[in-house]
Amino acid sequence: MHPSRAGRLPVEDYLDGVHRRFLGLRDGAVADYIPPLGAVDPEQFAIAVATTDGQVYGVGDVGNAFTLQSVSKPFTYGLALEDRGLAEVRARIGVEPSGDAFNSISLDAAGRPKNPMINAGAIAAAGLVEGDDPFARVLASYGRWAGRPLEVDEEVYAAERETGHRNRAIGHMLRAVGSLDGDPERALDVYFRQCSVAVTCSDLAVMAATLAARGLNPLTGEQALGDASVNQVLSVMTTCGMYDAAGEWLVGVGIPAKSGVSGAVIGVLPGQLGIAVFSPRLDPVGNSTRGVAVFRQLSKDLRLHFVHTPRTARAAVVGRTLGESPSTRSRPPADRDRLDARADRCLVLETTGDVLFAGAEALSRLALAEPHRYVLVDLSRSTTVDPAAARILAGLARSLARTGDELVLAGANEVTATAVGVRHLASPDAAREWCEDRLLGGAPAAEAGGLELADHPVCAGLDPDDLAALAALARPLELGPGDVLVEAGEPALQVFLLLAGDVEVSTATSGGDRRRLATLSPGTSLGEAALTVGGLHTARVQATTAVRCLAVPAAALAQAPVTLRLHLTQAFLVGAHRALGRATREVAALSR
Amino acid sequence: MHPSRAGRLPVEDYLDGVHRRFLGLRDGAVADYIPPLGAVDPEQFAIAVATTDGQVYGVGDVGNAFTLQSVSKPFTYGLALEDRGLAEVRARIGVEPSGDAFNSISLDAAGRPKNPMINAGAIAAAGLVEGDDPFARVLASYGRWAGRPLEVDEEVYAAERETGHRNRAIGHMLRAVGSLDGDPERALDVYFRQCSVAVTCSDLAVMAATLAARGLNPLTGEQALGDASVNQVLSVMTTCGMYDAAGEWLVGVGIPAKSGVSGAVIGVLPGQLGIAVFSPRLDPVGNSTRGVAVFRQLSKDLRLHFVHTPRTARAAVVGRTLGESPSTRSRPPADRDRLDARADRCLVLETTGDVLFAGAEALSRLALAEPHRYVLVDLSRSTTVDPAAARILAGLARSLARTGDELVLAGANEVTATAVGVRHLASPDAAREWCEDRLLGGAPAAEAGGLELADHPVCAGLDPDDLAALAALARPLELGPGDVLVEAGEPALQVFLLLAGDVEVSTATSGGDRRRLATLSPGTSLGEAALTVGGLHTARVQATTAVRCLAVPAAALAQAPVTLRLHLTQAFLVGAHRALGRATREVAALSR
Repeated sequence: MHPSRAGRLPVEDYLDGVHRRFLGLRDGAVADYIPPLGAVDPEQFAIAVATTDGQVYGVGDVGNAFTLQSVSKPFTYGLALEDRGLAEVRARIGVEPSGDAFNSISLDAAGRPKNPMINAGAIAAAGLVEGDDPFARVLASYGRWAGRPLEVDEEVYAAERETGHRNRAIGHMLRAVGSLDGDPERALDVYFRQCSVAVTCSDLAVMAATLAARGLNPLTGEQALGDASVNQVLSVMTTCGMYDAAGEWLVGVGIPAKSGVSGAVIGVLPGQLGIAVFSPRLDPVGNSTRGVAVFRQLSKDLRLHFVHTPRTARAAVVGRTLGESPSTRSRPPADRDRLDARADRCLVLETTGDVLFAGAEALSRLALAEPHRYVLVDLSRSTTVDPAAARILAGLARSLARTGDELVLAGANEVTATAVGVRHLASPDAAREWCEDRLLGGAPAAEAGGLELADHPVCAGLDPDDLAALAALARPLELGPGDVLVEAGEPALQVFLLLAGDVEVSTATSGGDRRRLATLSPGTSLGEAALTVGGLHTARVQATTAVRCLAVPAAALAQAPVTLRLHLTQAFLVGAHRALGRATREVAALSR
Repeated sequence: MHPSRAGRLPVEDYLDGVHRRFLGLRDGAVADYIPPLGAVDPEQFAIAVATTDGQVYGVGDVGNAFTLQSVSKPFTYGLALEDRGLAEVRARIGVEPSGDAFNSISLDAAGRPKNPMINAGAIAAAGLVEGDDPFARVLASYGRWAGRPLEVDEEVYAAERETGHRNRAIGHMLRAVGSLDGDPERALDVYFRQCSVAVTCSDLAVMAATLAARGLNPLTGEQALGDASVNQVLSVMTTCGMYDAAGEWLVGVGIPAKSGVSGAVIGVLPGQLGIAVFSPRLDPVGNSTRGVAVFRQLSKDLRLHFVHTPRTARAAVVGRTLGESPSTRSRPPADRDRLDARADRCLVLETTGDVLFAGAEALSRLALAEPHRYVLVDLSRSTTVDPAAARILAGLARSLARTGDELVLAGANEVTATAVGVRHLASPDAAREWCEDRLLGGAPAAEAGGLELADHPVCAGLDPDDLAALAALARPLELGPGDVLVEAGEPALQVFLLLAGDVEVSTATSGGDRRRLATLSPGTSLGEAALTVGGLHTARVQATTAVRCLAVPAAALAQAPVTLRLHLTQAFLVGAHRALGRATREVAALSR
């Protein structure tokens, strides 16, 4: 599983310990109502855990095959939901725990089977699967859950079919009360076959992890079932999955689960894990003795119980001023001073983790605690913003609008951006820059015709002789939008003084995209860092507008009057210390 | 609620909308088995939501008083659990859904009431409360849940007591089967009184939020119930809280809840919210018609259903090399080069959000994907590391130890640090420094006797005349451990060249503590940034060992030979660009 290490992953060690702990538990008896089940080795014992990102852990007999039996029920119920829709399935099959044994007929007051996890409800669900060959569709569907094609154990199927008198009675009773249309034998045959599908404990963990991942198989990326149907299946498993011990299970384990008389139990931790245990000896209720014991232990050790939900959504909002979290655009000193004075008119709220209702609620309180002209919500570090959170953000936009203020989104996905319905910039950096431009109230200070060399900040206080010497050294350059001034990896041979237009500094990401590091405006210089340290340009610099600049060759500068060199070095040192101050503040803000 | 704003918080707007939406729903009938209940205004309608950090939202008649009725049951059950322990309570009262009406006697095969949410189980729970005046303890306990003292509505109590024949029958039956000790009238009187305690909808939201916060009242900070008992109460509410519609509730709403015949319903989203709805008209099952409708709507809109759990724990681990996430200690160039060459021998894993099993599992996979001599797990940005995660981290330490590698923790709390049982440094910065020291394999390069001026890196390549000029300007200083070299706010008047010993740069935090920004070693300079930008020192610099340094006054330096000034300015520029490069890499790593 992890060939590069001598050691094993801690989860494997942990599962080994649990396996050893319950290996000696031999209570209960193997199901023997059909000979093939009675003949299995009762000592078999496997535990498998699959994560929603596709890691599968296993210990014990994880490769041994056995038949699904009742563990098939939630998966066929899911297919029936997809085929017929929730309303029709709900009209035919209830969702209440029966309090009766799995093989009781248990019809409710409306004449429906009480739920789809008892045989009556499962047979009714099998009867709702559409198609000329409904079982072929059931089998194909199971394969999508397991991530590999599955097959029927023909010996078990023959025995189930031959001895299934009680299930036949249920089928005909369902036909009599109208819960089943057509020939009951058709639904019964699907049911007998589905119970006889052979799987391994690893297969079951993947099937459970697919439920945990809202129907998306983490190994194959295939969607085995739609989101809404998955929710319905998990809800029913929660109250009806463990035969008539629903309350005990919910108190002691607290996750949706399903067991089968072959000795399998699956459990689902939504969003996180699928778990499967296989061991054939059953307790009096019909659940695997070791299976129940292992799940109780796992739930306790790993805090799987649904009452232990993470509380991250609430904590994962950080509020900063735009001054603490600026864009990468380099501004001329005058603009920088104006921005510094106004930076607290814009609140930047950065989220991490999934943003759900509670997180959005906390965010909206932060946003409204003090008045701000702009509230920028940067969602770029959150993978999920759920519809409930988007609804709250839309409400926040309305609240802000009442006082003439504005919500701006950055880094949201299309669905969220559309749901919230405010200005959205995909790039968090561009969104910050947009807010800064609004705070500056229009055109940046030095936009009109650009600067001349004497106006460039590095020349401030320079004596006229040195200015003339610098002018003599400098070579004027003009670039059009898209022209590349320097490329990453090129030797650094000159310093550039930007006089008019904007350039963008960017690097290539591992994904092949470009990531903007900074936008530089007239009055800034560039290239001096590469000259000072390393000798190579580390990023591409590219004009985004018509650009006018001066190139000062380093070799010529080295021969220039020492007073000019000192003046420029001091100017660069001021720039470097300012940039270092900003970066240090940003590190501090990001780290808190 | 939010006086500083003209607008309202979005959650208030949202709740307003839900309230308006169901105001026209007038189905059902007010309970009338006792006159005071039958006499209430059926139009009353309130919705309240309380967060686990103490924000209470309300809309409609949130201040109207009504009696708890069956909503009292989980709270008395909780007190019984605290008084008697789980084992004794479980021996007396089951946890299975009854499938029967709330006022049925419903004993299970063992002669116990099926669960504590039906009257039989609630009366048995009332009988388990200890003390000479058990109801006084019940009332005091309810006050801890609500965050204010509560009182009995004496008119309702008198009517309950007078007409409670069915409950009396249940009480005596419980006595007969041994579920109740002593005089059944004692338990019945507690029960009649607890049902008659008057509350408001806001009170109920706080009581529910206290359940959501594992028993800690978010308004008062008081612990109303222990963690383990809270879990038991929530589990039972999940399957038995809504009378005999448990399955419908779990499918349609999906959170633990409890209703009462006065028209109240409470619901709990563990870790996040408590919700209460009050409206007196009841559906045929006995649940508030509007209450059920509001909860269904809220669950849908706000994604409250337990299957919608956040998946943050998994995503919130960032892995970097020690080179990408260095300590703040400034190292002499030789040490810096050695560290750069070895920085990938130490993996730094930073977590954000709550670290639960799944997060620790993902972290351990990252940690073991490639061999590293040291794995530093920085937990300082995570509020919660649960025992399951600590268990996995301890396993990770064992896995690493098998190949002679070492796990180091930073920023954990005492409980976690003890549970994991490896080297733990409270300060993430100190932990990085510790790892760097190990990678350097012992004493830093320039520790022994320190440097002379000529060896200081800023003098590298300086011509002998300039070196002599600098030596003439510089004033030697010696400090002992704890001596302050400069204080934040002082004017910057000189540059310091550190020759021997260490100094620490720190600022005061808002909490009054000091936060270390950097540790500087011999061969570094300090003060030049304050001289260049701003003119004031922004941090305290304090010796941590015996320190020898040179102070170069800025005024004297301004008169020094221009070649010396150029040399020093260039050296400072190299240092600033190096520091800027490190800070930029850190910002990029923190932002990804």
